[in-house]
Amino acid sequence: MSKQRILTGITTTGTPHLGNYVGAIRPAIEASHDSNNLSFYFLADFHALIKCHDPALVHQSTREIAATWLALGLNTDNVVFYRQSDVPEIPELCWMLNCMAAKGLMNRAHAYKASVAANEEAGEDPDFGVTMGLYSYPVLMAADILMFNANKVPVGKDQIQHVEMARDIAARFNHHYGTHFVLPEATVDDDVAVLQGLDGRKMSKSYGNTIPLFLDEKPLKKHINKVKTNLLEPGEPKDTADSTVFQLWQAFATPEQTQYMREQFAAGIAWGEAKKQLHELINGQLCEAREKYAELLSNPTHIENELQKGAEKARSYSVPFLKELRSAVGIKPIV
Amino acid sequence: MSKQRILTGITTTGTPHLGNYVGAIRPAIEASHDSNNLSFYFLADFHALIKCHDPALVHQSTREIAATWLALGLNTDNVVFYRQSDVPEIPELCWMLNCMAAKGLMNRAHAYKASVAANEEAGEDPDFGVTMGLYSYPVLMAADILMFNANKVPVGKDQIQHVEMARDIAARFNHHYGTHFVLPEATVDDDVAVLQGLDGRKMSKSYGNTIPLFLDEKPLKKHINKVKTNLLEPGEPKDTADSTVFQLWQAFATPEQTQYMREQFAAGIAWGEAKKQLHELINGQLCEAREKYAELLSNPTHIENELQKGAEKARSYSVPFLKELRSAVGIKPIV
Repeated sequence: MSKQRILTGITTTGTPHLGNYVGAIRPAIEASHDSNNLSFYFLADFHALIKCHDPALVHQSTREIAATWLALGLNTDNVVFYRQSDVPEIPELCWMLNCMAAKGLMNRAHAYKASVAANEEAGEDPDFGVTMGLYSYPVLMAADILMFNANKVPVGKDQIQHVEMARDIAARFNHHYGTHFVLPEATVDDDVAVLQGLDGRKMSKSYGNTIPLFLDEKPLKKHINKVKTNLLEPGEPKDTADSTVFQLWQAFATPEQTQYMREQFAAGIAWGEAKKQLHELINGQLCEAREKYAELLSNPTHIENELQKGAEKARSYSVPFLKELRSAVGIKPIV
Repeated sequence: MSKQRILTGITTTGTPHLGNYVGAIRPAIEASHDSNNLSFYFLADFHALIKCHDPALVHQSTREIAATWLALGLNTDNVVFYRQSDVPEIPELCWMLNCMAAKGLMNRAHAYKASVAANEEAGEDPDFGVTMGLYSYPVLMAADILMFNANKVPVGKDQIQHVEMARDIAARFNHHYGTHFVLPEATVDDDVAVLQGLDGRKMSKSYGNTIPLFLDEKPLKKHINKVKTNLLEPGEPKDTADSTVFQLWQAFATPEQTQYMREQFAAGIAWGEAKKQLHELINGQLCEAREKYAELLSNPTHIENELQKGAEKARSYSVPFLKELRSAVGIKPIV
């Protein structure tokens, strides 16, 4: 039996924070060491063009995100790590899928519906500010998935619908042209750690409560010192259940270390001391990757080489498969 | 000053008839001998996928249409004659343009509006049966045009709007990313010959009144004999103004030949005799191309070689230009 194929898209905009790391990046990097599956990880730079019209930022973000994943130890020998735009078969497949995708399907996409609702609320035309990129984004995502016949697509809950659309488009294609596509499944890890931010709410860029992943030691300390605590004094026992400090600790600690901190809380550890230890724990785990990250960015040839290696691997799948699909729809050499 | 670039898309579905030949193919082939311009002619097979989901038909039509244009003497040394699907830069550019194209623009496309109106009339959902291919077809057409920075796009009146959309999308791209695109202009030849069909109405597939272009001599005769005439007897003078026979004659005749037939009409030529001469005239002009066409189809390697030659020429423009455009939007190598 052939290996299960797992495909993970990586957004190339924005600076990753600890919440992204714990919730998405770390488990994906751990999974990259599992050679029972065939995993594809791609930097979604065609998608970035939908929202970001600043070329320098698109370029810089792609470089930084690639460096982040490599610095954190993504096993690129074991997985296929590529930049979406290095696989020209993807936009071509996107066009083929356009010809199979019902427009009505796109009308039901949550992201599009949210834009329409916001426009209507504001008394604007329903499609105000909506580009064809935003509108047809689920078709491009279907092409991303179907290009590699991925069985599983690990996503957040907000992305389940898009994987279902890919499934729907694939089924329609198979129905018309014979079975070429595996029907992909979204996998949602309910156990995924949702990290709290500085203010105790979910760590999220939109709340402005994040701790960036590769902060230097000192700024990291400053950020951790800002984590919200209650007014309990040193010596007073503290509750782990409502403590962001404890929750952050737990996200980085071994079970033994978690048990240790639980006891410290019961024993009334001072917030300052707990934060000091939290800083040591996180810093200890990230300092090596942080150095590696800085090194990669100062000598980005290695990043580009990795991406070229990944592109070659990715295209060893996409080129012959697109040829098969072209032939299936009737686009092939005359003789 | 560099040459004006003229781009002509060729639909690859259906069998061309004399109306297509006189109105579109013949003038385009004549223009292909003019080396004052740089002309691009492409077989629009990505577009064919919108309407035709029969792979054998897509393939066969592309082959036949390519053979038709080659048999009729398209000067492929002078122009760039290529199959759209041989230029993978086009669907990639299509995605970039998606990210610049307002969805509202597509909502105003005549073809889409006609579908919506028909659906509403029938009490269906407005988007019933509309695919994303049909809906985003103007973006692909914009990519076709802008990929080669065409200055002029000769089109029928129904296509003017699509060229204007390409212009609009190009202007928006230039505004965001700097001037990369020429703003294309639609050129509509008002003098274009509109040929009458067997029943005297415009020759059109939808009226079922066509004379296919490459009919063999005998079936061509049969078709011409079916052309509608009035009941005037031999010897009775006939009016050229309301005669389809005369109109067909004129479309293929030299001015001298036209004058000759005008005199024959005045002198009361019999319809049978006029049709006989018409058959000789048309057959004489097409028999060589018809033989060439049959020859090409029986040995299609030559067709494929011509398309490969064209693809190479087309990509000598599209590959470096896409590289420039990628860099403009921020998609480029890290180092």
